[in-house]
Amino acid sequence: MTTYTVQQLADLVAGEVEGDASRHVSGVASVDRAGPEDVTFAVNERFVRRLESTSVGACLVPPGIQLEANGTAYIRVENPEIAFGMLLGVFHPEHRPEPGVHPTAIIGRGTRIDEGTWIGPYVTIEGESVISAGTHIGPHTHIGVDVRIGRDCKIGAGCTILHDVEVGDRVRLYTGVRLGVDGFGYTAGAEGLMRIPQVGRCIIGDDVEIAANCTVDRGALGDTVIGRGTKIDNLVHIAHNVKIGEDCIIVAQVGIAGSVVIGDGVHVGGQAGIAGHLTIGSGARIAGQSGVIGDIPAGAVYSGYPARPHRQSLRASAGTLRLPDFQRRLQELERRLEAETETE
Amino acid sequence: MTTYTVQQLADLVAGEVEGDASRHVSGVASVDRAGPEDVTFAVNERFVRRLESTSVGACLVPPGIQLEANGTAYIRVENPEIAFGMLLGVFHPEHRPEPGVHPTAIIGRGTRIDEGTWIGPYVTIEGESVISAGTHIGPHTHIGVDVRIGRDCKIGAGCTILHDVEVGDRVRLYTGVRLGVDGFGYTAGAEGLMRIPQVGRCIIGDDVEIAANCTVDRGALGDTVIGRGTKIDNLVHIAHNVKIGEDCIIVAQVGIAGSVVIGDGVHVGGQAGIAGHLTIGSGARIAGQSGVIGDIPAGAVYSGYPARPHRQSLRASAGTLRLPDFQRRLQELERRLEAETETE
Amino acid sequence: MTTYTVQQLADLVAGEVEGDASRHVSGVASVDRAGPEDVTFAVNERFVRRLESTSVGACLVPPGIQLEANGTAYIRVENPEIAFGMLLGVFHPEHRPEPGVHPTAIIGRGTRIDEGTWIGPYVTIEGESVISAGTHIGPHTHIGVDVRIGRDCKIGAGCTILHDVEVGDRVRLYTGVRLGVDGFGYTAGAEGLMRIPQVGRCIIGDDVEIAANCTVDRGALGDTVIGRGTKIDNLVHIAHNVKIGEDCIIVAQVGIAGSVVIGDGVHVGGQAGIAGHLTIGSGARIAGQSGVIGDIPAGAVYSGYPARPHRQSLRASAGTLRLPDFQRRLQELERRLEAETETE
Repeated sequence: MTTYTVQQLADLVAGEVEGDASRHVSGVASVDRAGPEDVTFAVNERFVRRLESTSVGACLVPPGIQLEANGTAYIRVENPEIAFGMLLGVFHPEHRPEPGVHPTAIIGRGTRIDEGTWIGPYVTIEGESVISAGTHIGPHTHIGVDVRIGRDCKIGAGCTILHDVEVGDRVRLYTGVRLGVDGFGYTAGAEGLMRIPQVGRCIIGDDVEIAANCTVDRGALGDTVIGRGTKIDNLVHIAHNVKIGEDCIIVAQVGIAGSVVIGDGVHVGGQAGIAGHLTIGSGARIAGQSGVIGDIPAGAVYSGYPARPHRQSLRASAGTLRLPDFQRRLQELERRLEAETETE
Repeated sequence: MTTYTVQQLADLVAGEVEGDASRHVSGVASVDRAGPEDVTFAVNERFVRRLESTSVGACLVPPGIQLEANGTAYIRVENPEIAFGMLLGVFHPEHRPEPGVHPTAIIGRGTRIDEGTWIGPYVTIEGESVISAGTHIGPHTHIGVDVRIGRDCKIGAGCTILHDVEVGDRVRLYTGVRLGVDGFGYTAGAEGLMRIPQVGRCIIGDDVEIAANCTVDRGALGDTVIGRGTKIDNLVHIAHNVKIGEDCIIVAQVGIAGSVVIGDGVHVGGQAGIAGHLTIGSGARIAGQSGVIGDIPAGAVYSGYPARPHRQSLRASAGTLRLPDFQRRLQELERRLEAETETE
Repeated sequence: MTTYTVQQLADLVAGEVEGDASRHVSGVASVDRAGPEDVTFAVNERFVRRLESTSVGACLVPPGIQLEANGTAYIRVENPEIAFGMLLGVFHPEHRPEPGVHPTAIIGRGTRIDEGTWIGPYVTIEGESVISAGTHIGPHTHIGVDVRIGRDCKIGAGCTILHDVEVGDRVRLYTGVRLGVDGFGYTAGAEGLMRIPQVGRCIIGDDVEIAANCTVDRGALGDTVIGRGTKIDNLVHIAHNVKIGEDCIIVAQVGIAGSVVIGDGVHVGGQAGIAGHLTIGSGARIAGQSGVIGDIPAGAVYSGYPARPHRQSLRASAGTLRLPDFQRRLQELERRLEAETETE
């Protein structure tokens, strides 16, 4: 592992050194595991105080915290968490294979592969597609016809990107992700359920990340769209014609039914479900395991099943715990009124 | 894209033209997006009226609706939605590669590959299996020993069909589907949990569709069975020895535990869970996110956790919202009775 | 299928024969399906009695049950279920291909492949990894750099084991399992959400089993750890830095959020969710679909959303059914008190 001086690290994160700038650091660690050759970070005074009894090499600290000289070299930065994230990338650079198309990759005709791409072993691309510069396609990934993938994307191993899918720049698909899956569209015909052909597309914006084993359906007639910067955790299901805005956070195992429209900056907690054709306003927060069966206004915080404003859900939930007590009190009142009536 | 006259389209869907039968149409679109060269559909009077102010090329309409002559060519059909589905398939025919076995496919001995099949690149078939006529096996799919796949199936990319699985005719597995997975069977032994070998089969009926990244376990001793025509959405889990009837609809992320028996025509909403060894009667409807922990009679509508008849769940759920009010009223009653007692 | 005498089977499971030890048996079946050439098992008196009217070849029975001579050969064993599991394995031995590295497997430099391993077709191993003796890697599985896999593991088809993952001995990954996935770690930066590099490892203990399409994230800074003997069902999500103890049972579609610590012998029911940073004590039982948002003490049984001690949940849930009745009684009391007040 490479070694850096504290000054070099400070330069990388635009911070200012307080202490020994020439000290050497060779690793990154959390506050409770950092040793004399590590850099760590403290987000507030409490973390800095905890640090003082240890022998940490260097520590990123926010503005305004009083520091004691104790051998640790401090680096003042605006946001220690972000700076630490940058240093994580410096000490653990992502493994990037040399550009090239592996000889076992099968690339169908009419496909344009730009400069600086890496196409891994056993990749299959049906044809008429574009893989833009700097993009990395992992082993065993299959890409259908008429797919466009932007620049500097990282597509993991064993993904499937079906026909007519459009992927923006700097997109990451982890592994086992399925894009452009036929939506779940049937209508009752004379001989049982009849498939409605799914002819829409699936459009993934720039800087979107979709984690392992997620499934994203194509549109039925229109398109399924995931907006720029949105991050989607493992095993999430996104149905046909869903529109998700920018910078949303969708936690693991969420299910979003067909034609749902989600604004920008929405957070959806793990295992929550959103029923079809609903609208979720920008900035809304939906708690984990919520069952959303109605629209949610912008900025609102919802939870529970059926999902309601969070305070209402909390009160309802707390109330159910008092039900045995309510019953007892109700019986007592009835008994007393009965007794009174008899004595009258 | 090919162009058709309205008369040609009407012939394809067994409809009757009202208006200019020679008009040319080159695409399909929803009512709100259709232009002068598109065919769309209207399911009721309201949609037809909405259409009149636009300049749509052609529109499928149901019987009995009064039409105004406005340039649009109408095609009368029994069921416009089904007819539209057929036209979607006409304008967007499914991409079907030329039959053949890709040279990189590895086919183990004793495997019979019938006429008109397409076996994609990097497919592996262990051996002693049958792939029937007209079936399509996507890239990177793995098929174990003693598998029988029927006619005209479409098996997507990156699927796994393990040994001793039987797949009917016209079955579609989307992508990433796992069939014949060992069930979750353990018993407490002297040295921790002991695996119970799972030796049953997994039998998929004709016309079944199973969407992306679903998992279907094989039977422990008997078989796991999915009945003819049943449709299963993305990321569904079906455990060992489950029997699902015909023409059921299982929405995304549903989990069905071991040995559950489901009748015909059952609908299970997204993210619902059904506990082990239960029986769900034919025609039952289970709402999304329901937690089913008891049998459900035929035709019943259930919801909530624990799942109950839908009306009961709704009343219980509405009641919890009134709990703060109940508490207030209870206190008021107690206060008044207390006051009365004191004054007596 | 091979045939065994009842005596041979008794020897295999350390049991004692009562009846005709020379009788031949050629299959295993459940009590209700077993015929004259099958061995089955009975866990209690009721099952034995049910058997007596049938013509089963042999039956494993527990100690202490009175048997009637009726042609069936009985084998007395301590635990018939475990013994039956052993016989299942005898009659249905697992298909184990001949050791060897398939010529299409691509093995990166610095990788050590021990004796007796089987590396299937189209496997890719990036390099600097170790595959220990007796381990079986299924087709289309991808293994990153610096991965160590122990002895006698069975890694299914189409799995992804990313860099810096450590897998113990006798581990089974079914198919489509993803290990060492980047965790879901973002922080709000100036230009939207910023990825926090995930640099920890993912460590899987001996005898762990992980079923189809599960996803296990690597640690962010520290490690994600799954303890010896733990069994994980299909489609489970395990987030970064989760620590799971030994001999736990995690049923299908469970989601465990970041940094959760789970003790030994914990059972988590299907579709349950555990929120981040919580601690679940050893021996705890969490019912299916529970939403855990607080710590759970050792040995406790929890259910519901939010998860509470199971009895409390049951009472609350039952109480909600009586809410319409409560409301009626409350109104009646109010009416009567109102009437009294008026008459006073």
